Parts: sequence; C-alpha cells; structure tokens
Amino acid sequence: MDLSPAHNQSLEDLDRENIFHPFTLPSEHMAHGPKIMVKGQGVRLTDNHGTVYLDGLAGLWCVNAGYGRQEIVDAIAKQAALLPYYHSFASMGTEPGVYTADTVRRMVPGNMARVLFGCSGSDANDTQVKLAWYYNNLKGRPQKKKIIARDRAYHGVTVASGSLTGLPTVHKAFDLPLPQVVRVRCPHFYREAEAGESEEAFADRLAAELEATIEAEGADTIAAFIAEPVMGAGGVIVPPKGYFEKVQKILKANDILFIADEVICGFGRLGTPFGSDYFGIVPDMISVAKGITSGYQPLSAVIVCEEVWSTILESSDYLGTFGHGYTYTNHPIACAAANANIELMEREKLFDNAATAGAHFHAALHSRLGDHPAVGEIRGVGLMGAVELVADRATKRSFEPAAGIAKKVQADALARGLILRPMMNDSLAFSPPLCLTTTEADEIVDILAASIEANMGAMKDAGANH
Amino acid sequence: MDLSPAHNQSLEDLDRENIFHPFTLPSEHMAHGPKIMVKGQGVRLTDNHGTVYLDGLAGLWCVNAGYGRQEIVDAIAKQAALLPYYHSFASMGTEPGVYTADTVRRMVPGNMARVLFGCSGSDANDTQVKLAWYYNNLKGRPQKKKIIARDRAYHGVTVASGSLTGLPTVHKAFDLPLPQVVRVRCPHFYREAEAGESEEAFADRLAAELEATIEAEGADTIAAFIAEPVMGAGGVIVPPKGYFEKVQKILKANDILFIADEVICGFGRLGTPFGSDYFGIVPDMISVAKGITSGYQPLSAVIVCEEVWSTILESSDYLGTFGHGYTYTNHPIACAAANANIELMEREKLFDNAATAGAHFHAALHSRLGDHPAVGEIRGVGLMGAVELVADRATKRSFEPAAGIAKKVQADALARGLILRPMMNDSLAFSPPLCLTTTEADEIVDILAASIEANMGAMKDAGANH
Repeated sequence: MDLSPAHNQSLEDLDRENIFHPFTLPSEHMAHGPKIMVKGQGVRLTDNHGTVYLDGLAGLWCVNAGYGRQEIVDAIAKQAALLPYYHSFASMGTEPGVYTADTVRRMVPGNMARVLFGCSGSDANDTQVKLAWYYNNLKGRPQKKKIIARDRAYHGVTVASGSLTGLPTVHKAFDLPLPQVVRVRCPHFYREAEAGESEEAFADRLAAELEATIEAEGADTIAAFIAEPVMGAGGVIVPPKGYFEKVQKILKANDILFIADEVICGFGRLGTPFGSDYFGIVPDMISVAKGITSGYQPLSAVIVCEEVWSTILESSDYLGTFGHGYTYTNHPIACAAANANIELMEREKLFDNAATAGAHFHAALHSRLGDHPAVGEIRGVGLMGAVELVADRATKRSFEPAAGIAKKVQADALARGLILRPMMNDSLAFSPPLCLTTTEADEIVDILAASIEANMGAMKDAGANH
Repeated sequence: MDLSPAHNQSLEDLDRENIFHPFTLPSEHMAHGPKIMVKGQGVRLTDNHGTVYLDGLAGLWCVNAGYGRQEIVDAIAKQAALLPYYHSFASMGTEPGVYTADTVRRMVPGNMARVLFGCSGSDANDTQVKLAWYYNNLKGRPQKKKIIARDRAYHGVTVASGSLTGLPTVHKAFDLPLPQVVRVRCPHFYREAEAGESEEAFADRLAAELEATIEAEGADTIAAFIAEPVMGAGGVIVPPKGYFEKVQKILKANDILFIADEVICGFGRLGTPFGSDYFGIVPDMISVAKGITSGYQPLSAVIVCEEVWSTILESSDYLGTFGHGYTYTNHPIACAAANANIELMEREKLFDNAATAGAHFHAALHSRLGDHPAVGEIRGVGLMGAVELVADRATKRSFEPAAGIAKKVQADALARGLILRPMMNDSLAFSPPLCLTTTEADEIVDILAASIEANMGAMKDAGANH
C-alpha cells in the first residue's frame, strides 16, 4: 500500500477530505476551512503561510507555560527514548507517574489521598461520575446517585461528562443529558440577577435554589455537585461573592461530594495554584487536565480525598479488582511532560505572573472599554477573562444572535493577528499563556478595541434588527 | 511550596502513597505493589531494580513496533520542539493530524470518509455511541438507539463504553451497563458450543440468536452492533468460521451500523492491517487506538463511513456546530508519533512478521502444549493468543476460581522473566510486539511451559477441590 501523503494536494485539501473537526460547523469548514498552525514560540503561533498570531486563548485554555519551552520538550524526548510506554494495570507502574502524582497531590487543596490519571478532562469527569456512584454503592446508599451540575457548565463531551455540561450545543441531537443529572442556575450576576439585586442577595438566592433542589430531589438521592471555580466555555463566568462558601455549607449538611472541575482554572490560570484556592473551596474530588502539561501531552487526573480512597481500599476484600482505568493511565511521556511543566511554572513563578499580568490586563480592559457603548460586561480573574458585547448597555439587550457579532469581531481580530474565542451572548474570551507580559496584554486590548470599532456598523444593524 | 519529590522515600512507597492504580486490587497493591518499569528496548523491559523481562503483552496489547524505536522518538521530539500543541476546534488544525488522518483513512477497510481523533479506545467507543444516536436523530429515527454488544467484549470504561463492555469487573458497583445496551452471546466455540455442535452450526446458532434479539427488540430500535474482530480482554476469543459473514448479512438487512472495535486488532496484530481485513468485515464505523502509535502517545480515532459523514455534513444548516470533540483531538505530537510509527511498521513489514512469527508461535504452542493435560484450549490469530488451563481436558472443567491458577502461572512466568496476562477462566494471554523473532517466540513458549509445570501441584489441588 502506498501510504505517502498525496503531495499533489494542498494541506488544506487533505484536511477537508480527511479530518472530522471537533466543535466545527461542517459546511463552513468544507467551504472555508482549515487554518493550520505549524510553529509556536512563547505566546505566538505561525500558520502554514507564515502569518503570526498572538494566541489569546493559549490553545484551548491550556498552553499555560507558552509554546517552545525547551525544558518540556527535552523531558518528553528523554522519556520517549528511555521508556515511551508502560501501563499501570495490576500494580505495574512507571517512574514519571509516581513523581507527577506526588507533586500534584501535594499541590492541590483539600485532604487528598490518591491520583488516578487519564488523558482528557472529559475522561476525568466521566470517571468522577463513576466514582460518585461506586462510592455510594460501597457506602450502602445505592439510591444516592444524582449529580448536580450548573447551567452553562462545561465538563466534557463523553456521554456522562457531556451530560454534566450545561450547554445546548453539546446536548442537541446527542440525546443528552442522562437522567441522573440535576441542573441548577448559572451564577452569572450580570445576566441572572434580578433588577436591583445585590451580588450577595444573588448568591443567597442561588444557595436557596440549590437547597430547594436538594430538598425536592431528596438529599439521599444526590451523590455530588460539580463546578468549575470560574466557568470556561460557558462564557468565563465568575460567581458572585460568597457563592462557594454558601454552596459548600449546603453540600456538607447534606453529605454531598464537591467535585471541583479544575481543568481550566487549575495550574495557575487565576493567579493561584488552583481555582479552589482562589475561592476557598475544599473539594472532595478534583479533576485536572490542560495546564498540568500545558497541553504538550494529553493528560488528566482525578484526585480523590482520603474518605473516598479509604472506602475503595476497604472494598478490596469483597469487590476484588477495581475495574476501571485506561491503557494510557500514568503514560510515562505525558507524566514526564507534566513534571517538567510544573517545575518550570514554579521556577518562573508563572502563577504569580498570572495574577500580576492578569491585574494589568483587566485594568487595561476596563480603562479602554469600560465605558464603551457596545460593552456590557468585562469579567474574569487572573489571566482568564471575557468581554460581553451588547446592543444596549442600559437594558443589557443582546444582539440578534443570527448576526454573529462575536464571531465577526473574532474574525477581525484574527485578521489583525490575535486569536480570541467567540462565546454565547456575544462574549469574547481570553485565556493567554501565563507567561504573558504587560506589553503583550496591552497588545491584546489594542487589537480587541480596534476590532470592536471596526464592527460598530455591523453592531448597529444587529442591534436595530432585534 | 516545595515540590521536589520526597527522596527519602522509595519509589515504591511514593507509588503506594500517591497512585490510584487502574484495574488493580487495592489491598494487594498496598501490601505487595508496585513493580516499576524504567527502560525498554525491542521486546524487553527493565525494572527499577535492573531485572529484565520479555514483554509478552506489548504493554497492554499496544507496543506493536516494540520499545526504543528511534524513528518514533525523533518524530515526537521534533514535533514537540516545533509545535507541541494546537487544537482543531472551529476549523483550526495542525499538519501531523492531516497526514495521519489521510494515511489511516486510506489504510482501513470500508468506504471511509473522515477521521475524528481522540486519546483512548474508551473515548473512541464513547464517541461511537454518541454518533450512532446523533446519526439516527438526523435520519429522523429517534427510536433507533440501542447498541448490541457481546458478552465478554471489552470496549472501554467510560459510562457509555463501559456499558458496551461485557465483563462483570467493569460493571460491578459502577451501575453499568446503561439500559441502551443489548447483550448477545460471546462467540467462544470452546466454552459456548453445545456438545457435538460443529463450528458452523455454532455460528448459525449465534446468527439465529442475533436475529431473534433484533426481532424481539425491534430492528427500528437498534442503531448499531459493536464487535472486536478478535476479543481481547475477554480472553482472546476468535469467532467461529463464517460468524462475521452471517452477522453482517443480518445487520445489513436490518439497517444496523457495524462498529468495528479495532483498538487491539488494528495495525497488524492479526498479521493483516486490520482485524476486519482478516475476517472480511466491511464496517460502517471503526475505532482505533493502541497500535496507531504503538502506545508511544495516547491517540485514538473514530473513522466514519461516507453515509454517516454526509448525513452529518448535511445537518450543518439546521444543527449548526457539531458539538463534540476533545481538547487533544489531532494532538500534533501524538499524530507525529502515529505517522512515524505507521511508516516504520510498513517499512519493516511488521504486519507480515505478525503473520509469520505468529504462525511459528502458534505451531510451537500446539507442539509443546497441545497434548498437555492441563491445557484446554490454545487459541489466537497472528501475534495474539491465549492458553486456557483446565482441571479436566475431557469435560473442560475449570479450576476452583479462588485458587487463582492463571495468576499463579503468570507470577511464576514473571519470576522467570516473561510478562503474560491472566484472564478469566484461567487463560493466559499473549500479545507481544510485532517485531518478535521466532527465537523470542520460542522463549515465550519455553517459559510458559515451565511455569505450567511448576504449578502442576497447585492445579491438582484446585482441580480436586472444585
């Protein structure tokens, strides 16, 4: 068989003929896609035509250390040459897995006991669902199985983790969510608070809703509550002050596990090691991925607290083998990348930089766009943020969705060399590498401001039509 | 925070204190685990105490090219330095993903249209479930959703793929399977055929059972049938002659998709490019993982036929964005590893070697153990095989399960420097790297024979007790 690539075709043609793109509009891709990146250095990417972009999203919220980090590249190459793969089934193991687990377990908040590696945030949250069910079966509470998740949450795309996700695009035509998921309100003050409601009153209302939901369902039917400290794909939603404190009190009173989905917030995104540190969350289980390797390798982990671990350990005698895990659990190259990445981020104090560069970035956004007539809200923490565009600041009226305003602004920014992500309600999200300088932060703000200006005409039309 | 590893502790202590091992007996691990591998070359591994092993299982059925392959290591290092990560959401892409998809799509059987990458066999089969549901929703058949899977199948461990799996360990206390899975019989002639039944009559009976199941459930409620060409974790089960021909005829007649789970059989394991090639299967969807990178990187793919792809493409106008996919879909380092691995296996004709070394291996097994009183069945194709131990050859009576005979033989073989895998019904599985020489095949047979001899006393006790 001749397997050499068909070099008479362009890379773009080959892509369109072969690749099934994730989260892409198929017809649009066939007409206009793809854009192919071939090189990365620091916060910048180069496409196959030589155009350079500032990556305002760090890949997909994940390249925390930035591109081209020789220390991580070297660790990957070294481990690949030594032992590119071995598994961890049946008590086998590899060195990098042990060191990564030790480091991560000591970094995370809470009284954490063990680390179970996987490959993606999706598989981590799928595992969380299984563990929540398993744990309650072992505890003799077979009816305590539902999981509370929030509207606009993003927890992945497997059948189970996609069910936890609270976004219509992930559910529509996929027969999701599963019936075990109970939904509560998105803690978005700007969109969900009532007229005149204070942030604290909003947090109280959310807590009351959670409490009422638990009571209506029955606390003895609810295994866990899952939350991203700051919601990512749902639009960079920062909860109102006091929210997680109130939520944790209710969960504790009802013996419901708190699963912190730290896939985006973990490893420094908010300027603290984990999002839970920023909000004072003490989780029972944690999911991490993305920043753990800065995306250089597919790696995720579920970290379980002492109570869950000891319950599983004690079940050994009557249940036998723990019947879960992945071929690539503890993948030695992925774990070697994680070790090098975490060490590098510690050495360069990138979590601190996320706090300081993030503060500069948010100040610059507010100063440049805070009074802009098309800007409804500027939100975020550390190096994670979003700007929500509106047709009318006073009434918070959105644009005609079909006008695709955020997508137009994003396309304009891309043409000016900045990668942003358009999100629901015409928000534009940022999540740049944590090595971002204040100069680079200013560059992002400059381009965004210019792209908004360039679309004022389109916005006027989209606002008037609505 | 001090993140340096606690070097006053042994690697084994650190493992026990930190790692949640997949498919491991927790209490046994805490008492006796782990065994840590640190180096690999060809078919051999070295542990952290310098002991060398012949890896009779190629990791977990995956290191097809063998360890220490410089070409794959170089491809990984080169891509890591150039562009260690970029995503493929929203029509973005990377070069290695395009070339891997092009190669894989042209290699696989059937009329395949597009390749959707993931990280693991589990996520690939979870995606298959979602696509089977999605496709039938788009076709206006919202009731056509059940998936037929076989007893003893292994398709992964996510909530959905674990439901497809037909092994008790994966279900017990995890609340699996989901109700959408319909189970049919395992096509194991040795254990499931009736007295005096011919292989063909057994295949006819399995086909009749499948047909009756479809009729009982209603063909309009069944979306897909999923099968490994040769079952792996279920015990290396080779179906009876004619089985897949009969199965395909029934599926076609009832408009049911055939999902070929090629995670183990794909990329040469049976001596053909894919297991489907060996059995004349023309699948509608294919899952691959493991051998695609020889385990050097976590990578999986779902490959969909023209009919499924065009249905999804045509849905663009009314459904919008295809709301599924992973952060690490098309991971550039993983795809670069796949390219180098596939090229290497082609150049060294490793699929052909799997056929010839496999034939030698099976001949040697039959010649050495074919008449052994404790050997019930020797089975397999290419470089995938199993030997099932029995208390009584004539009646096929198994040993007392609690005696753990296969585990004892495996432990003895490990002490002699050979890694095997104990499976249900006291089978021992083999799946060595495809670069295995006939000398190495003989070495496996020698050690296995010695380990069986060494356990004759234990077997006598376990047979008598039953």
